[in-house]
Formats: sequence, structure tokens, C-alpha cells
Amino acid sequence: MTQPLEGVTVLDMTHVLAGPFCTMTLGDLGATVIKVERPQTGDDTRAFPPFKDGKSAYFAAINHGKSSIALDLKSEEDRVIFEKLLTRADVLVENFRPGVMDRLGYGWDTLHKAFPHLIYGAVSGFGHTGPDAKRPAYDMVVQARGGVMSITGEKGRDPVRVGASIGDIVAGMFLAQGLLAALLDRTQTGKGRKVDVAMLDSQLAILEHAIALTTVTGQAPEPSGARHPSITPFETFHASDGLFVIAAGNDKLFEKLCITLNLPLWDDPRFATNAARCENARLLKRLIEAITLDDTRSSWIAKLTAAGIPTGPIQSVDQVLKDPQLIARNMIVDVLDKNGRVTYKAAGNPIKMTDAPDPTTRAPAPDLDGNRGEILRWLDEA
Amino acid sequence: MTQPLEGVTVLDMTHVLAGPFCTMTLGDLGATVIKVERPQTGDDTRAFPPFKDGKSAYFAAINHGKSSIALDLKSEEDRVIFEKLLTRADVLVENFRPGVMDRLGYGWDTLHKAFPHLIYGAVSGFGHTGPDAKRPAYDMVVQARGGVMSITGEKGRDPVRVGASIGDIVAGMFLAQGLLAALLDRTQTGKGRKVDVAMLDSQLAILEHAIALTTVTGQAPEPSGARHPSITPFETFHASDGLFVIAAGNDKLFEKLCITLNLPLWDDPRFATNAARCENARLLKRLIEAITLDDTRSSWIAKLTAAGIPTGPIQSVDQVLKDPQLIARNMIVDVLDKNGRVTYKAAGNPIKMTDAPDPTTRAPAPDLDGNRGEILRWLDEA
Repeated sequence: MTQPLEGVTVLDMTHVLAGPFCTMTLGDLGATVIKVERPQTGDDTRAFPPFKDGKSAYFAAINHGKSSIALDLKSEEDRVIFEKLLTRADVLVENFRPGVMDRLGYGWDTLHKAFPHLIYGAVSGFGHTGPDAKRPAYDMVVQARGGVMSITGEKGRDPVRVGASIGDIVAGMFLAQGLLAALLDRTQTGKGRKVDVAMLDSQLAILEHAIALTTVTGQAPEPSGARHPSITPFETFHASDGLFVIAAGNDKLFEKLCITLNLPLWDDPRFATNAARCENARLLKRLIEAITLDDTRSSWIAKLTAAGIPTGPIQSVDQVLKDPQLIARNMIVDVLDKNGRVTYKAAGNPIKMTDAPDPTTRAPAPDLDGNRGEILRWLDEA
Repeated sequence: MTQPLEGVTVLDMTHVLAGPFCTMTLGDLGATVIKVERPQTGDDTRAFPPFKDGKSAYFAAINHGKSSIALDLKSEEDRVIFEKLLTRADVLVENFRPGVMDRLGYGWDTLHKAFPHLIYGAVSGFGHTGPDAKRPAYDMVVQARGGVMSITGEKGRDPVRVGASIGDIVAGMFLAQGLLAALLDRTQTGKGRKVDVAMLDSQLAILEHAIALTTVTGQAPEPSGARHPSITPFETFHASDGLFVIAAGNDKLFEKLCITLNLPLWDDPRFATNAARCENARLLKRLIEAITLDDTRSSWIAKLTAAGIPTGPIQSVDQVLKDPQLIARNMIVDVLDKNGRVTYKAAGNPIKMTDAPDPTTRAPAPDLDGNRGEILRWLDEA
């Protein structure tokens, strides 16, 4: 049993979310991740609530299993250590504003000359090129500008933000993919590449259907609340004790649904085709909900599942953490503290692989500069 | 100039979105992607609206540059072709319901014995293990069950769906990452692995902050509309002609914002700290909006950007497609037809890499079985 990225060393100069998420997923696949943090404060998220035993749960959840060394890259002594690390690392990842690494004397051109094997990954708000490269960005700025907010929310009301920070996270994921492609390429060429991922670009990349619709129809899609814009019924319904989804994607599933609900509508011209059901979606929702309100969510989900109709609850995060399927898949893991005690829960590794361990615990997130001694010893061994 | 995945061959048995998105991103990085489709109908999305010149824009946007061969895996003759393809492929990807490949006689154990070099990627609703493995799922089912819907929407109203199909897309991205890790691992071991990614698991993996919050406070987070749950002001505001975001993440940025808006509130005890601003968020929003409504969105964005305050418009998809930064980054590409004419727009490759071409056009999506002849000739060359 080995993780696929064992032997890969990642020098992680990132902070907050997009970069640390990227290196966390590489770590979950077996890479050794060394966080290079600024002295005194380190990663900003060390100060983010909520805290447990004085430590940030947010930081712990995204930085478990990494080690940490604090380096002041304006001090000569620390630059020597940093350059030793560059010699040993396969990948350097940073999410500074474009230009910061150049000002430190560690821009891509310089690094590539001195360390030709090194792969350099950068994630930033708008990327390292283009008119807005130097602008600051946050998750919500790119969710808004990139279009996803314009299609999220209720029709006729202001758009809403996606509750998960997909502006950061999707960019971190594309960066991880680019870094792995570069590592694979390096096995042939021996040479590193620079990978430059923008949060804004990444938002565009996940819009697919909306782009096709807009370019063919000339009309930008609008938010459609909790229903699919062009399939009916494919939306949320109230049961007596909570919300759940029914996704009856075609006429056959609709007929099965009608039979299960004892609601003989499949021959009714107002509902016989998907086009007709879309026309009369509000009426259909009321007719279905008049029935679903009479029983519990779990009862309806059991009946619909038995009939082969895609369905599921809308779960709050506390419910998600108790979901038997997610528990069976090792998707809820315990982050330990230095004494091996369980402290926080975090998401497991969604990439399940044969012959790779899939542990349900994670080593703690590092204290700031907490691994300096062992890292320096490791450098001296070389 | 070479793409990092040149020389990698992907046998793509996927349909609809999660799988095809995965193989599209591998194709954009240089992999050769051969779609193996069922005869007569092929990928379901060939029949998805909208159409242009009789072809689905949805299919075109996600399958550009791939080739297609139609194979009936119940026919002996086609099984021979399929097995020749397995000999030549590096990666097989499928997104059937778990069990389908086994029934065809091409489950992982069988394949791994016969083709030990082959990497096998599967993406499904709930994964290949656990009590719900065989249940059907759609994007919205996993968005609902995985928790992201419970934190998306307006407080006090029913949750909404994320407008982009992140249930499918994020799973496809994790699968791509797993496949690349397995390819890299194979350069050491010579052996393939199976990668099993579930759409539900992948939703959990992007919740990070929400999981940390829930496990430490015991309280599941609620949707917070278009504002950040714990930073103020960090939300949308109306200008005279549209919505935009102001993300003033700390006291210093808030002071700059006050100066730019000519709104002397930074010393006001109701707004002097982030905690106080969160308490009085609704009042603050009204005070700011009373000013922002007086001028256009682009004017405010220019002024706030000049002051160093993170800001940006909420753009509809048609506006996104004209965004100068995205155009400068080659993020809006033209999908050509077989005669080289521009037909659709699609998202470009968000993974920008040195020494790799970054074309602004894409070869057309294949006709069903449209590349049979050349694929058979390529197999015979071996």
C-alpha cells in the first residue's frame, strides 16, 4: 500500500484557502508538504475563528499533515535555507499577488535558471497576465465577476453567493491538476514548468452549460432557485419534516413518480411531456407538495428510491457529517492534535485509489515554525 | 512548445457531464481522448438543447477535440476492437452506474489482470462502495445531500441550487487529479490503479470552512445570501445600473472605503470593528447603498480599485464572455466545425503553463462513430 505521490516534495508558500487547499489535496495523495511561513504571524488563517484549545479549526482543517518552517526571505541567513529547500523540492506553490516573488528575487525566470527541475505553481485572483493581473481578489469577487452568482438564487431576486468558497477551491483544484501534469511531463523532459491559475478563469471553466446556452440563444441564463432550468420535476419539495429533492428526468421516471405518489397525472396534457411540465412547473410543484407534506422526508426518500427515482434530502452540514454513505466512504476524518487526541473533523480524500491507504485520521496541522529542527536536519543529510 | 500530456491516450466511455468534463480537461492538457460510444445514440448530451446547425452546443462545448468510435460491447467483433484499444490506452474512464462494467466483463479485477498497465477511472453518484453505491444520482441530488445547498440562498428562505453543475464538475476534476497522480505513480511502478470518485464525496470535500465551523460550534451554518457570514462589509451593493461586490476585509480597508465614499463612519462605535460592523450589517448596507445608488457600477469599481479595495461587478454570462481580462487570458475560445468555421464559444483552459500552447480555438466535437476508420488504422499500426 503506497500513496501515489510518495516521494514528491512540495514547498508551500501559500496562505488562506486556494493555495493551501491545493497542497492539502497533494498531501492527501502522499506528497510531503513543507509550509514556508512568514515569521511571527504565519498563514493568516491561524488567526481565523472558530478556535479550539486556542487553535484555529479553519487552519487545522486545511493544513493537517503539513510541516512548517518560518523564514524571513529578506534575511540572508533564511534565504540560504530557502535555496537549499528549492534544491530538494519538486514543486513550489505560492498564492501571493503577482509580482511579490519577483521582488523577493524568486520570480519564475530566476528560479527556472537556478533550479531547472523545479515546478512552480501560482494561484492568484486574476492570473499573472492581463490588464487586471495586479488587482486584489477574494472568493466573492470572482464568484460575482465570473458569472456563477448571476445564475444562483431565486428568479426575480438578487443573486446569492455559493455558500462554499468555490472561487478559491476550484482554482486550487485546477492548480493541483496542472502541477501533476507538469510532474508527469518532467519524467520525460527533466525540466520544470510554471503553472499559472487564476481564480477568475477557473470560475469561467465551471460554467459550461451556461456558456453554450448564451452563445447559441444570445440570452444569458437567469437563476432558477432550487429547480433545474429545463427539466421538470427536478427540484426541491417540502416533506413534513424537511426539504428533499426529486429528480425525475424523463417521462418514464415521471410516470413512476406519479404511481408512487398516487397522483395520476402522466396522461394529463398539462404534464404529459417535459415541455408541458416545464410550462406548468408551479402548478405541478403544488400538486406534488400537497402529497409530500403528509409524510416524512426519510419515508418519501425510501419509497422513491425503491421505485428507482433519483431523490435525496437537503442536508445541513451537521446532518452531512452523520451521513452513513459518507462515513462508509471514509469521507469524514478526525484531525488529531500532537498528543494523538481527536480535535476536529475534516473532509476526507475524495480520490479513492486501489493499493493506497485511506486513513480516517490526519496528523495535526503544524505549529508555526514547528518543524524547523527536523527540516534543517533533513537538508543537511543531502 | 508541447502540452504536458502529449502521448497520453485516454479511452473515454463517459457520458453527460462529470466524466466528459474530466476527459476534456485532460484533452486540453494534450492527452488524446477517444470516446467509445454506444451505437445509434451515443452520449446522451448529443440530444441536449440548445442546438446549432442540428448539433448540440452542450455536447460540443464539453467534447471538443475528442474522437469517437461506436462500439457494441455485447458484440464479439466490437469486443475485439475494444480490447485492442485497451492495449494501447493509458487510461480508461467511465461514469456508468457501479456494476455496469463488471456485467460487461470489464470490471477492474478483470481489466487489471489482462492490462496491468491500464489506469481505470470511475466517477459515479455515490462511489463504488458503501450502502448507497447503486443509487442513481444527478447533480442536484448531491448538491442537496452533500450540504452545499444548505448554505446557499437567503436566510429564512428555502435553499437554492448552485447555478453551475458543481455536483458533476468538481467530481470530474477530482477524478482528473487522481488519474494524473496514478500516471505519475505508474512511471515508478509500471502498474495501473483504479481511481474511484463519488460526486457526493466531492461535495463534502469543498465544504471545508463549514465543516470546521460545525464541528467546533456544534451549529450548522445557514445560508447568508450575498454576504460573507463573518466579515462586513463583504457583500453586494446596488449601483445605479447593476450590482457589484465590495469586499473590505479589515479595518484599514473599511477606512479607505469610507474615505472613497465620503462616509465618515470608521470612528463610529457602531462600525469601528468588524464585530460591530457584523452586528450592524443591515444598517451599514443601507448607508453605503444610499451612496452607491448615485453612480454607475463601472464608476464605483474604478474608484474603489484605485483606492485598493477589492471589488468587482456581478456579471451575467453574456457580460462574462466580453470581460477583457478573460479575453486577455484566452479563456473564451471558439469551437470550430469540420469546415474550420467558428460555431460555438466555450471556456478555455484555466491551467496556463510555460512552453505549452494556449490556443483560442478548439477542434470540433466528433460525430458519433466519426473517427472509426482512423482509429482502426491506428490500432493496426501497432
